[in-house]
Amino acid sequence: MASLRFIALKLRNGSSYLYNTSSFRAWVYRISTVRSFSAIKSPPSKAVVYDQQGPPDSVTRIVELPPVEIKENDVCVKMLASPINPSDINRIEGVYPVRPPVPAIGGYEGVGEVHLCGAAVRGLSPGDRVIPSPPSSGFWQTYVVKQENQWHKISKDAPIEYAATVTVNPLTALRMLEDFTTLKSGGSIVQNGATSIVGQCIIQLAQVRGIHSINIIRDRAGSEDVKEHLKRLGADEVFTESQLEIKNVKSLLGNLPEPALGFNCIGGNAATLVMKFLRQGGTMVTYGGMSKKPVTVSTSSFIFKDLSLRGFWLQKWMTSDKAKECRSMIDYLLGLVSEGKIKYEMELTPFEDFHTALDKALGKLGSQPKQVIKF
Amino acid sequence: MASLRFIALKLRNGSSYLYNTSSFRAWVYRISTVRSFSAIKSPPSKAVVYDQQGPPDSVTRIVELPPVEIKENDVCVKMLASPINPSDINRIEGVYPVRPPVPAIGGYEGVGEVHLCGAAVRGLSPGDRVIPSPPSSGFWQTYVVKQENQWHKISKDAPIEYAATVTVNPLTALRMLEDFTTLKSGGSIVQNGATSIVGQCIIQLAQVRGIHSINIIRDRAGSEDVKEHLKRLGADEVFTESQLEIKNVKSLLGNLPEPALGFNCIGGNAATLVMKFLRQGGTMVTYGGMSKKPVTVSTSSFIFKDLSLRGFWLQKWMTSDKAKECRSMIDYLLGLVSEGKIKYEMELTPFEDFHTALDKALGKLGSQPKQVIKF
Repeated sequence: MASLRFIALKLRNGSSYLYNTSSFRAWVYRISTVRSFSAIKSPPSKAVVYDQQGPPDSVTRIVELPPVEIKENDVCVKMLASPINPSDINRIEGVYPVRPPVPAIGGYEGVGEVHLCGAAVRGLSPGDRVIPSPPSSGFWQTYVVKQENQWHKISKDAPIEYAATVTVNPLTALRMLEDFTTLKSGGSIVQNGATSIVGQCIIQLAQVRGIHSINIIRDRAGSEDVKEHLKRLGADEVFTESQLEIKNVKSLLGNLPEPALGFNCIGGNAATLVMKFLRQGGTMVTYGGMSKKPVTVSTSSFIFKDLSLRGFWLQKWMTSDKAKECRSMIDYLLGLVSEGKIKYEMELTPFEDFHTALDKALGKLGSQPKQVIKF
Repeated sequence: MASLRFIALKLRNGSSYLYNTSSFRAWVYRISTVRSFSAIKSPPSKAVVYDQQGPPDSVTRIVELPPVEIKENDVCVKMLASPINPSDINRIEGVYPVRPPVPAIGGYEGVGEVHLCGAAVRGLSPGDRVIPSPPSSGFWQTYVVKQENQWHKISKDAPIEYAATVTVNPLTALRMLEDFTTLKSGGSIVQNGATSIVGQCIIQLAQVRGIHSINIIRDRAGSEDVKEHLKRLGADEVFTESQLEIKNVKSLLGNLPEPALGFNCIGGNAATLVMKFLRQGGTMVTYGGMSKKPVTVSTSSFIFKDLSLRGFWLQKWMTSDKAKECRSMIDYLLGLVSEGKIKYEMELTPFEDFHTALDKALGKLGSQPKQVIKF
């Protein structure tokens, strides 16, 4: 039997954190079981673990996990980087509809380098750069062991922070542009929350396809700088919500065609503004609700304007038939990154400062770039 | 030139009704132009005319219109019956997005008997029973002249009040059941406003297809009688809104499957209740907004429950490719009427009492059956 050594490296705020010791030990035992003395094993791994759902800054801690057996089809990957996405926070909080069983390791995507391969692995070699595909839970740790078919070898051209983040945000943007309506070059889309990473990817992916983007941002200090930034990315128009407090927002379209597709990640009035821009028969796709306000729709928007309202959730999409082509989509997106056609701001934070990165991701330190943990 | 005789047969409440006399005369001239003394002409027609949009009970009056020429492809139909639908009222009020140019004759569907045929007409003969197909404006009058291809010959088996009303309500119910999702026998639908005529048709058409219906009605005196009535029509479950003020409405489903399709003609809380019943990935179709309240939708309903929200408008559908098969659908529906599989309450009111029927349709005389004018 393997020795069950584990160390709590960091306890937040010295708080008297409670967890069920016996269930945690059983879990560590489960993930570290080895079959024979001759088995290849991974190095020990440092991981961000939570034993129960709750406020992420108090339920997460960094733990050293013992080596695990690398079976013949397994690949052990030394992680290079993994982001803190809002959905990671929601999973830890327990407000996500799919809750990984606890204890769990955080993180849903990332990038790493192959460290060791099981005897039957043919497609990967040590030193290869890989991402988990499909994404799954558990990438906030230094070494991850998964079967070969769970890893996708990628080019080393794209910076690690982009490889680490390519699945959740850029792929969402790509699928939302493709899966709901047929947009032709010269057409247009409208979106709120345009400064989000998905929003910035939508602007850039639309531009690659010759599609115009109409963008809505919230009113705040520095909104003129934000407009300039989004226009440099390729946005055709950027409006603050207060600019759209007029009777006919379409009068602002100028020569742009009325958009057939809209994206909403805010809710409330910001969603209504997206619908106002949409053309007859248009579709609005909701993928977030940052204002925590619902979407409110008039009867006539459905009957006479023939709007369709839909939702998009990447985790659900990953279980669909279309996801079979996920890896070629990832390659396409990383190619655009390498060509400089997709960019967004991120901050690489060393793993030992995980809880600072988490505080930034939680918004405790004001507006901050997306946090990507560097292992 | 034809003589321009017209008579206001009935002026409501003796009110000093204003209209643009010269434009009205020009209109009468336009519709009554004859080319030669030998042309066949229709009899004079009594029609419900409005010269401007406004409150239907004050802007409508019954007018005698002069004979019109019956050209070689025209068919003159003696109208037998035509309903007062809520959309007719909305058109007169001017709150409908498509406004017939005024002066206009009310009424969007009806049934009649062929009175005279133009020389080139081959498919219809005097005495045939016909309905306008596609529906259009102008059937609140005693004689209507339209080209042969605008009339659809129907069986005389169905009572005239059903033939007069088969297009707007039963066809809406049929298309909404068919066009948004694939329902299999044994499946279920949920709807609010179940006592509306469309609602009653949905219950009965669902039953014909082996589909269960979950129905929501408003709380009111006599709701137990309403429930019994809808169950006799084939409803599986009927709930008042107050019965659904519970945490998990699905606990009321018993052995019924979660519905994949829902219909909303009310808005507000009644629409929310429909969405609560829907299964993951379900669709809600809005076709009315009787409460005048919007539809309010949580972000998670779109993202995690993957609901699709759509709208249905028959007038728009009539311009679609699918409408080419409209006539076989009408025949199918009238067949179900003849077999007693579709029924709903109506009141035939003589044309001379049009304004009483209108008052009933406007809700001025309390709850009343659908008003159908009998010419």
